[in-house]
Amino acid sequence: MSSNFILKNENAIFYECGYSCDNALYLSLKDECFFITDARYSIEARENIKNAAVIESNSLIKDAKKLIKKFNIKKISFDPLSFSVSEFKNLSSSLNLNFKSSPNFSQKKREIKSQREINLLKEAAKLGEKCFDDLAKFINESKNLSEEEINFNAQMIFRQNGALNLSFEPITAINANAAKAHALPTKTKLKNGDLLLVDGGIKFKRYCSDRTRTAFFDNKLNFSKDQIYKNQKHQEIYDIVKEAQYQAIKAIKPGILACEVDSIARDFIAKNGYGKEFFHSTGHGVGLDIHELPIISPKSKTKLKEGMVFSVEPGIYLENEFGVRIEDVVVVTKNGCEIL
Amino acid sequence: MSSNFILKNENAIFYECGYSCDNALYLSLKDECFFITDARYSIEARENIKNAAVIESNSLIKDAKKLIKKFNIKKISFDPLSFSVSEFKNLSSSLNLNFKSSPNFSQKKREIKSQREINLLKEAAKLGEKCFDDLAKFINESKNLSEEEINFNAQMIFRQNGALNLSFEPITAINANAAKAHALPTKTKLKNGDLLLVDGGIKFKRYCSDRTRTAFFDNKLNFSKDQIYKNQKHQEIYDIVKEAQYQAIKAIKPGILACEVDSIARDFIAKNGYGKEFFHSTGHGVGLDIHELPIISPKSKTKLKEGMVFSVEPGIYLENEFGVRIEDVVVVTKNGCEIL
Repeated sequence: MSSNFILKNENAIFYECGYSCDNALYLSLKDECFFITDARYSIEARENIKNAAVIESNSLIKDAKKLIKKFNIKKISFDPLSFSVSEFKNLSSSLNLNFKSSPNFSQKKREIKSQREINLLKEAAKLGEKCFDDLAKFINESKNLSEEEINFNAQMIFRQNGALNLSFEPITAINANAAKAHALPTKTKLKNGDLLLVDGGIKFKRYCSDRTRTAFFDNKLNFSKDQIYKNQKHQEIYDIVKEAQYQAIKAIKPGILACEVDSIARDFIAKNGYGKEFFHSTGHGVGLDIHELPIISPKSKTKLKEGMVFSVEPGIYLENEFGVRIEDVVVVTKNGCEIL
Repeated sequence: MSSNFILKNENAIFYECGYSCDNALYLSLKDECFFITDARYSIEARENIKNAAVIESNSLIKDAKKLIKKFNIKKISFDPLSFSVSEFKNLSSSLNLNFKSSPNFSQKKREIKSQREINLLKEAAKLGEKCFDDLAKFINESKNLSEEEINFNAQMIFRQNGALNLSFEPITAINANAAKAHALPTKTKLKNGDLLLVDGGIKFKRYCSDRTRTAFFDNKLNFSKDQIYKNQKHQEIYDIVKEAQYQAIKAIKPGILACEVDSIARDFIAKNGYGKEFFHSTGHGVGLDIHELPIISPKSKTKLKEGMVFSVEPGIYLENEFGVRIEDVVVVTKNGCEIL
């Protein structure tokens, strides 16, 4: 079996050598590894990469092909999700070589996290939780904030004075806007009695956190999972989503299929009459990528294993009314799972 | 000639219909246009798109194929840079269809800007310049800032309280770090007499600004192009780069080739003994993408036309010493060019 491979994705490359940038190729050929990048990044690459030779190049694909020829490689794996049609055409032209298409090549390698990675993800989750607490404090101390202002300040607070990066642009949505699963912030102001959905995460040493809370606002807002709403329908929907998430998390353990976890949350919501209003997957892997393997969806036949890390985030979205989503990231343990 | 096309790139789609999101396909088939996206974005898409039918889909490519079949399309253009090998395989399988590979399909359409776009790019440049002024004020009023702190605050200031987005993460590099054309910020502190390179841009209504200044720091720092350094070598290199940029900008007019503009800057720097220390292109198009067509490089045979917008940014990088880059964005006018 060939163990030769070529990578282009930034996180896939980072996983191999501890450094990456937005213009690089990484090759593992027989027993040697190569990091090819342009002059903008080559100094930093050399400073950071210990286990691969850094090659400065004006034409990354051309130099990758030279190496493949030099090593007389006959078979090499690549991820068809990472290479564009153009790039692959350039790479494969005039090479007499078997390119083995390996979708999610790196994500599959990364699906079970090492203890070191779990520790980093736990630290990311802890920092992410602190960001939610700091945001709650800011919101309670401010007056008359719009979704846009909450969003901007969430980004500032989540970045903790530059110590952290965002794993994605946070979602900050009030009432009807929370019915849009990926809402853009508007000028709508937060008022007493409103429902506020916040979905946000940070990166700690490149590992992502991800969390969603749907909170009742009354100047004593908090982002715990225990929420008391004045509006009865808010409370009804919230309690269904919370219980769906609880039941799904309770069922997680090594050996269960991802689709079974999905259906526990989905069936509970459907049984309560809101099946059509939960229209996305129950969860996704979290690691170097904010969305990675495993996928927790109705179609996912992945058997869960100890060390897998993923989100559990059921939701109910009532168009033009409001939406509720609750999300935590869990790690599969020997006998169950642990919320990060 | 077929005018059917399929788009995946966010800015390419935005250009057609004024809205886009990170999971969409856009099709122009005969006289009809379609925007396909998932349930997370479909409400917003319908609110924002007037000239295309919005289709909510669980499987974007599958629904695109259904439309292509329904319209009995025989030939369709696609950009091989926008589709991954996987996506294109899914798209093209079991369709009896001529896929016309059109690299940079949308960027080519967008290479000459309309007056409306030029106005937006001018406004973006004006706002971007204000961000540099605000950053200078902040740096002068602060004490003992590190590159990381300058970087974080640059991001805050450039976002202008959430009114603007960044066109890219700014570069803030002191002395030797400025020799790395895309330096990551470090804990190095800014001291009197240092050289500080800042490369940053914002987006105004999705149109990008881009600007680089290399400034002398003495608590009265400013980001104008007139800089007086205490260090004689700083001054020597700065003056060469400034003159190279000036000569290149002076030569820009309709009809000249992009490679000629590049060589004016490059030859001037080489004549002064630093040819090897200017290792990137002289410029790149700026519009919805921060890097788009035309490219101003030694190989670019593009003939410049009125309405093209691009950066002019020569630099000299002395490893382990310091680097200088000066960048402005220009629009080609009837008889020359104008700095935005």
